[in-house]
Amino acid sequence: MSTEKCFAKGSPAPGPVPKDHIRIYSMRFCPFAQRTRLVLNAKGIKHDTININLKDKPDWFLEKNPLGLVPTLETPAGEVIYESPITCEYLDEVYPENQLLPSTPFAKAQQRMMLEHFSKVVPYFYKIPTGRNKGEDVSGLETELKQKFAKLNEDLVNKKTQFFGGDTITMIDYMMWPFFERLEIFELKHCLDSTPELKKWTEHMSEDPTVKATRHSMDTYKGFYKTYTEGNPNYDYGL
Amino acid sequence: MSTEKCFAKGSPAPGPVPKDHIRIYSMRFCPFAQRTRLVLNAKGIKHDTININLKDKPDWFLEKNPLGLVPTLETPAGEVIYESPITCEYLDEVYPENQLLPSTPFAKAQQRMMLEHFSKVVPYFYKIPTGRNKGEDVSGLETELKQKFAKLNEDLVNKKTQFFGGDTITMIDYMMWPFFERLEIFELKHCLDSTPELKKWTEHMSEDPTVKATRHSMDTYKGFYKTYTEGNPNYDYGL
Repeated sequence: MSTEKCFAKGSPAPGPVPKDHIRIYSMRFCPFAQRTRLVLNAKGIKHDTININLKDKPDWFLEKNPLGLVPTLETPAGEVIYESPITCEYLDEVYPENQLLPSTPFAKAQQRMMLEHFSKVVPYFYKIPTGRNKGEDVSGLETELKQKFAKLNEDLVNKKTQFFGGDTITMIDYMMWPFFERLEIFELKHCLDSTPELKKWTEHMSEDPTVKATRHSMDTYKGFYKTYTEGNPNYDYGL
Repeated sequence: MSTEKCFAKGSPAPGPVPKDHIRIYSMRFCPFAQRTRLVLNAKGIKHDTININLKDKPDWFLEKNPLGLVPTLETPAGEVIYESPITCEYLDEVYPENQLLPSTPFAKAQQRMMLEHFSKVVPYFYKIPTGRNKGEDVSGLETELKQKFAKLNEDLVNKKTQFFGGDTITMIDYMMWPFFERLEIFELKHCLDSTPELKKWTEHMSEDPTVKATRHSMDTYKGFYKTYTEGNPNYDYGL
């Protein structure tokens, strides 16, 4: 059995976290878990992955994290960390190689403020597809999303950099990326049409080896999202 | 004119931030701004305070922070930082004296996870008084709040410590405190009746010199909240 397959209620608990590894409890298609997977990959951190059936969670998972959230990290010492930005900052602090957050307190605060702004953009990626599926008029929401994208575009124009934290990828890029990777599945790619710098950013991000290593093919995404919108997500889709 | 008085639209901009100082844009009764005021005070950071009329914000303030939020910090170099947890972590990083966040990445992550939990408690402090003022039945919301308090109480019982990060006050205590300071004004003090450890925590916190230095008298709080609930907040109440 591939270890990529998800663990559901009743499945035997995985063994202890191997020494010198960290474990991520994940779901293959979750954009929040992908943030942590991006950071694990970008920093070359040895880890194992336990995918969770989010509709039918194992009891042993809920014992580790009563909120039942992915991503959740577990260390060999049994320390449990969750909430995607917290897991990512934790990893960046514990594993010094390839630092993703800037070192100065102000630059770090700037990335946190950007992430806070972006957290107000995230709901659109859910509200628009859901509304559309119900046959609602989502043009107002799309206009709002385009305005949010225009702000991000302006930010890149002002900074004159390829990425949001400079000319190399930093933490904030990986925090935002998973939602942009899904624009096509959400049928929202046209929302980038008036924001050329942001569009260029998505193109640069697509070429990043870490991004390539953590993403699924568009067909796999589409297949999963079909089962998801039908109310019966197949977390093992494509395996 | 006392510098505690708030600046409204049309009022002249304050001068530059004095060298070796940091400036906080605040509102005397805002619990989020109080978080930053607590940290500034606990760490003995030289600062000046500019109170903002939140109903009628000066243009020069909106130029510094287009979101118009308090707390906002400004450095002599013109760097602007906002969102209360971000301002507090920034201060703790820049000013090493009296470190409020723990030094290990896991203990830091634990405080951030606690704060994330607590952010789901905060809305009750608004929903209950607002509902009550409208004559709604808020007993269900009060029961939910008591359940949240029971979790916090359990946490203190499990840790066997006076405060949430150990036997001395750390960042997480200051992040939660402003809302507990207002329990009496919100007529929610009885919600602590079944959570003795949490109640004891509020008593220990009340004795902290930093808490004492940043709070108003109960009469002043009540006077302000009366004007606030009437829809015409007097930000200079009691001056």
